[in-house]
Amino acid sequence: MAVYKLTYFNFPALAEPIRFLLSYLEIDFEDFRFEREQWPSIKPTMPFGKVPVLEIDGKALNQSVAISRYLSKKAGLAGSDEWESLLIDIAVDNVNDLREALALSAFDPNEESKAKKYVTLINETIPLYLNKFENTVGENNGYFVNGKLSLADIHFVALLDFLSFLAKVDLIEGRPILQAHKKKILDIPQIKSYMAKRPAFSIK
Amino acid sequence: MAVYKLTYFNFPALAEPIRFLLSYLEIDFEDFRFEREQWPSIKPTMPFGKVPVLEIDGKALNQSVAISRYLSKKAGLAGSDEWESLLIDIAVDNVNDLREALALSAFDPNEESKAKKYVTLINETIPLYLNKFENTVGENNGYFVNGKLSLADIHFVALLDFLSFLAKVDLIEGRPILQAHKKKILDIPQIKSYMAKRPAFSIK
Repeated sequence: MAVYKLTYFNFPALAEPIRFLLSYLEIDFEDFRFEREQWPSIKPTMPFGKVPVLEIDGKALNQSVAISRYLSKKAGLAGSDEWESLLIDIAVDNVNDLREALALSAFDPNEESKAKKYVTLINETIPLYLNKFENTVGENNGYFVNGKLSLADIHFVALLDFLSFLAKVDLIEGRPILQAHKKKILDIPQIKSYMAKRPAFSIK
Repeated sequence: MAVYKLTYFNFPALAEPIRFLLSYLEIDFEDFRFEREQWPSIKPTMPFGKVPVLEIDGKALNQSVAISRYLSKKAGLAGSDEWESLLIDIAVDNVNDLREALALSAFDPNEESKAKKYVTLINETIPLYLNKFENTVGENNGYFVNGKLSLADIHFVALLDFLSFLAKVDLIEGRPILQAHKKKILDIPQIKSYMAKRPAFSIK
């Protein structure tokens, strides 16, 4: 059996879709979580100096979305044909675009431009993306693509708390379809079991 | 036969991998290129207000990398098994990470932080990524993954001029393996034919 080791900070963020998928697949993995002060010594050992990194039998893999897609294929969550896979990949990357927009404001060191970006986020970007997601899931029988569980659903829900943290608002507040969607994903037995044993963390 | 229409600005950038792949596949497509002054009227008609968008039989698809992956499957360039597909996806997203780092400096409206980011790019980010790419292609018989043509090669070469434009340096100067790689991709007959008839453009 292959040996899996996931290296990331002790918080959900970019690693969480991978943790959800490994849990969904019931793959035993070393969930190696380091503290911020360890990062300078770990960074030079990682491909391209970034995490998360998943090692499979000692082979270090970077790029969280590529890893999630790979795992989702093993889980039968990557689409049943090329067209469905395309729709799933688009949904995943739309979530990533929202994440990038949120991060560009949240991590902007310049207070003036940060505030300006935040106004655009609250008034334009967040309503645009979240309303579209709400409609999409509503039109697709409670899932992002074609009325069935896929990587897109896992990716969105695994990242959601991080996205709301970056946005400084609960992104699904007032959006009942996405609230029900989140609950449904978190009620998947393997994910529920992972969440129950997930280590405590604080994001600062 | 399906009808393809690609909508983007009249320059290569994010649309170019899609144009390369459609050309490689010898798919006839409408290469709809608009000028900057048309963008405000086109933007509201695009999913999530962004381009490139590829319409296939009237179905509008956003997310350039997802589209490229879909087309690369049709071209047999997306990997021959799940592991190879993973390595290709990682290589593509590493190129995208470089693109994002370059764009964050190039499009920073604050001259002070822009200059600071540019110093990091020139001294750290560009050597890190380009040296790794040079080594990777050297170790893989002239391609990014497993010694054969894949989406990763098309993606990199199609974006390369844009990346060098953002970086304000020729990224492959002094990197003979990547120079030979670029030449090899541009010498693929269908891509050579596309490049020969590509409309004139200017990036400002």
